[in-house]
Amino acid sequence: MSLRPTLDFLLNDWLAVEGLNQRERFADHSRETFDAVLDTCERIAREKYAPFNRLVDTQEPHFDGEKVILPQATHDANRAYAESGMLSAAQDYEIGGMQLPYSVEAAANTFFAMASVSIGSGLLTVGNANLLMKHGNELQKKVFALNEFSGRWSGTMCLSEPQAGSSLSDVATRAVPDGSGSESDPLGARFRLKGNKMWISSGEHELTENIIHLVLAKIPDENGKLVPGTRGISLFIVPKKMVGTDGGLTGERNDVALAGLNHKCGWRGTTNTLLNFGEGKYPVGGEAGAVGYLVGQPGKGLACMFHMMNEARIGVGLAATMLGMAGYHASLDYAKNRPQGRPMGPAGKDPAQPQTRIIEHADVKRMLLAQKSYAEGALALELYCARLVDEHHTAEAAAADDARLLLEVLTPIAKSWPSEWCLEANSLAIQVHGGYGYTRDFPVEQYWRDNRLNMIHEGTHGIQGMDLLGRKVLMEEGKGLKLLADRMNATIQRAMQVPELAEHANALAHSLAQVGAATKAAWATGIPGDALANAVPYLQAFGHMVLAWIWLDVSLTAQAAADSPARTGRLACMRFFFLYELPKIGAWLNVVSSRDQTCAALPEEAF
Amino acid sequence: MSLRPTLDFLLNDWLAVEGLNQRERFADHSRETFDAVLDTCERIAREKYAPFNRLVDTQEPHFDGEKVILPQATHDANRAYAESGMLSAAQDYEIGGMQLPYSVEAAANTFFAMASVSIGSGLLTVGNANLLMKHGNELQKKVFALNEFSGRWSGTMCLSEPQAGSSLSDVATRAVPDGSGSESDPLGARFRLKGNKMWISSGEHELTENIIHLVLAKIPDENGKLVPGTRGISLFIVPKKMVGTDGGLTGERNDVALAGLNHKCGWRGTTNTLLNFGEGKYPVGGEAGAVGYLVGQPGKGLACMFHMMNEARIGVGLAATMLGMAGYHASLDYAKNRPQGRPMGPAGKDPAQPQTRIIEHADVKRMLLAQKSYAEGALALELYCARLVDEHHTAEAAAADDARLLLEVLTPIAKSWPSEWCLEANSLAIQVHGGYGYTRDFPVEQYWRDNRLNMIHEGTHGIQGMDLLGRKVLMEEGKGLKLLADRMNATIQRAMQVPELAEHANALAHSLAQVGAATKAAWATGIPGDALANAVPYLQAFGHMVLAWIWLDVSLTAQAAADSPARTGRLACMRFFFLYELPKIGAWLNVVSSRDQTCAALPEEAF
Repeated sequence: MSLRPTLDFLLNDWLAVEGLNQRERFADHSRETFDAVLDTCERIAREKYAPFNRLVDTQEPHFDGEKVILPQATHDANRAYAESGMLSAAQDYEIGGMQLPYSVEAAANTFFAMASVSIGSGLLTVGNANLLMKHGNELQKKVFALNEFSGRWSGTMCLSEPQAGSSLSDVATRAVPDGSGSESDPLGARFRLKGNKMWISSGEHELTENIIHLVLAKIPDENGKLVPGTRGISLFIVPKKMVGTDGGLTGERNDVALAGLNHKCGWRGTTNTLLNFGEGKYPVGGEAGAVGYLVGQPGKGLACMFHMMNEARIGVGLAATMLGMAGYHASLDYAKNRPQGRPMGPAGKDPAQPQTRIIEHADVKRMLLAQKSYAEGALALELYCARLVDEHHTAEAAAADDARLLLEVLTPIAKSWPSEWCLEANSLAIQVHGGYGYTRDFPVEQYWRDNRLNMIHEGTHGIQGMDLLGRKVLMEEGKGLKLLADRMNATIQRAMQVPELAEHANALAHSLAQVGAATKAAWATGIPGDALANAVPYLQAFGHMVLAWIWLDVSLTAQAAADSPARTGRLACMRFFFLYELPKIGAWLNVVSSRDQTCAALPEEAF
Repeated sequence: MSLRPTLDFLLNDWLAVEGLNQRERFADHSRETFDAVLDTCERIAREKYAPFNRLVDTQEPHFDGEKVILPQATHDANRAYAESGMLSAAQDYEIGGMQLPYSVEAAANTFFAMASVSIGSGLLTVGNANLLMKHGNELQKKVFALNEFSGRWSGTMCLSEPQAGSSLSDVATRAVPDGSGSESDPLGARFRLKGNKMWISSGEHELTENIIHLVLAKIPDENGKLVPGTRGISLFIVPKKMVGTDGGLTGERNDVALAGLNHKCGWRGTTNTLLNFGEGKYPVGGEAGAVGYLVGQPGKGLACMFHMMNEARIGVGLAATMLGMAGYHASLDYAKNRPQGRPMGPAGKDPAQPQTRIIEHADVKRMLLAQKSYAEGALALELYCARLVDEHHTAEAAAADDARLLLEVLTPIAKSWPSEWCLEANSLAIQVHGGYGYTRDFPVEQYWRDNRLNMIHEGTHGIQGMDLLGRKVLMEEGKGLKLLADRMNATIQRAMQVPELAEHANALAHSLAQVGAATKAAWATGIPGDALANAVPYLQAFGHMVLAWIWLDVSLTAQAAADSPARTGRLACMRFFFLYELPKIGAWLNVVSSRDQTCAALPEEAF
């Protein structure tokens, strides 16, 4: 079973990505060049990633006192990925890129996430280098970003600290100017950093010659005090090994030391670290303090970092989605081959009948269709968002701005919805396997463990809920929400004309009205504490509404095609979503609309 | 934080178990003797179980070629449990038991499940011996059951086979008479068994001197054929080591061989095995074939086995519940101590304010209250069911029969509901911890992994759904369902009189009507395939209705007490359940009522 027909349908039939080649940036591209990229990635994922997914789960990264050791398979996979050119797929030709649309890049990366999410595919390195291309000076681009795009070096994001996870305003890492003349270092104003960074993925390893950390830190004021809040945060490039202006290694190690590896429930193929910056283990020029080069303006670090956040959040959503897809494919395969039980006849089950395969049982079909509906729906959403990124970057001004705003509203959903529902899909994949699914002899328990991370990193569910209800639906006087409603209404209008879809179009219109009313009711008092007490139930309801819309829109394309099993399957997913899932939003919205304070008002001692 | 106040409230204030001492069997008992049992178990669990829960996760059972090696801590815990007398807690004084009510026994066992579910507390051994006390002959009771109650030997249940999991009618293990005179063996008619048994928990270990397997097998007819279906299934005692009529070991090993250990996602402290019976590795008297002694009548084995099923399913429900409780306590403790973020003021969050602890955030409170509501609600349900077991065994005839029928209806919920919702609680416990919860430095990821088993073993969710909608709500002309409705209506009537509860009483009455209507609609065509296509959504809705009833009933007791934080917390749980959870049942019942065939009718090739 291949992912490819689903990808092809969504990219070409539904999103019409080929049309992007009418834009100057993508003029050299065609269905053939897009397909070639997908072919290459599918092959590398099949050969270098999938066979080693269990291995990287059991052979966790370990520190031998000097180096972090990863399995050879991880080295091989990373090399193959870099050699494919995917790290710079979206970059300009002139710096060695392919000028590929982001939607095609994202689609191509799905193969790696599905084959082995924790071997990884350069998400952080690309995000890191992209940020530098946007906010770095020319030498920073050349020395750091280009060496990341080539795969020679890799990148990290260092935001969290042990005492500052979701609350970045409490970053305590300090950056002080590195003596006289430091402000005119050609690699960027030079500082010395001291502090601890937690949850740093790929923070230490030997996969690449060097590691480029992007680090949030605060520059103390004249009294040595750190500015409270996020205003005081600046962004720095801190290489693991010191680098000259020619991009060569100087031979000196920077003062960044591994303080510990985190041992995780899943996603074990990726090193996750606690790093000490500037503790003096590797003094540069005899002096403690990690050397860092300022990126952009002092105090504007978080804004720079957030530049890479939308794509990072789509990346997390896609990872969650592809784990869901992997579990779906595995359990579908199992269900087609595992004999168990008897067919349901008019009088129940007849033990004299031969055994059936479990895919013939209604409840197994329900669990499979739920997975398909979650995973393929989530994939459609992520690719839709990726398509918006392309619109934002290459459409004419008005459309580009609409895309930007829509992305702002949809990103919390793109991040959170697959994290929650494709995790549920993985649980169903275990359930389809029965006891076997609970053993490590089958892949599904690992998918489930791996996927549990996605509701946590890159902003927890709680953070996404506050972002959506506290910021995104309000911003620019609700214009983003209105834009989304317009798009949904356009889908509804078209679907009303199709007899098979009209009933569901009505249901979606009703849900849109419910969500709109709940949004107003939540903010009726204007008090954030009232509105946001139930931000997560709101996020869940909003997400289900968005997915229903996505499925209805996908179905408009599907139903126009000739009859086929794939068409039948897509329309069944849509019906499943409207009949089994969408009705859930009432329960979530009730407490939002009533600004229910049962939880928020409960005194601590009553727990 | 202690579980004890919750247990005390439920057992004494709500279920009034002390009143049981008015029955002859429990006449020697009192609040003091019950408390003493709880004290002892709480202490053993704290000293011998809790400190080793992570250890048994990391030091999985392994086979050294001859023996299965378990950590010393598991040996110590098992010995302490056996020495406590809990294995025979419910048995008659005359065979060394305590004549303890099952509700108190179940409550006492919660401490072990919460401290380390996978070290285990003799559930299988007790179930095995109980079955023999009911269906075995006198010598079987004396030789096998009594040595299990004493902790000298342990017991298993051998139902599943590699090709027969949920579908027991496909059991292929064969049992043939063991030569002339075998029918008059004082230990029971003697057979030789050949076959493979899968998923056998505690199937091989050195924790006890001997292991007593209870094995389902079929006796071939005169043509050597096995009777299809469950009618042909008989039950046998198959000891690991051969035993004389005096209960001494003969020194000979029986022909039961470990074929493999299953490596699980969680619950790793318990050995889970594939056993080969009669493959000839340990021929008894020079002959291949595992020696087994028939229990009860030939062909009636499944009925005997199901005698232990209700208590086993309550046991699974309690295990799931206590994992949920463990995660709740861990995350509550974390939330009270972890500083992060700022309080929500009238204008949102103010970074100039000092950090708050995360329990002060509304969404963290929501996740904690959800866990409390799931875990404490599930505990109330399990203890209610345990109380029904006592009614069934010791009440006067009419009440005993009502209890039996109510148990039939409630058992699928007692098994399935905590498996699903206390797993969700464990996921929320991880979420409260943020990234730390995803690491193996904190206990919550293990609770989550351990709990995932409970939707699978002792009858999957799918099996429970079919049992409830296909059998339990129909049996004896719907009398069980009517009995449940009567009890719910009695609660509703009482709650209507309490201003604080009246609104929720109304909601429960409405839900009861919804479930009743959906039950009728599901069976409107009389076709099992129509009714049962959505048996799991029905199970979910029914479960939420039952839990809402339990919470309303618990709240009647709670609200009558003097004001206290515990009272506030219980009433908040009830409100949470009615406002955030109960409204979900509409979505589940929609597809039941419409006998929706979206899943069931989807052709295989469309997936």
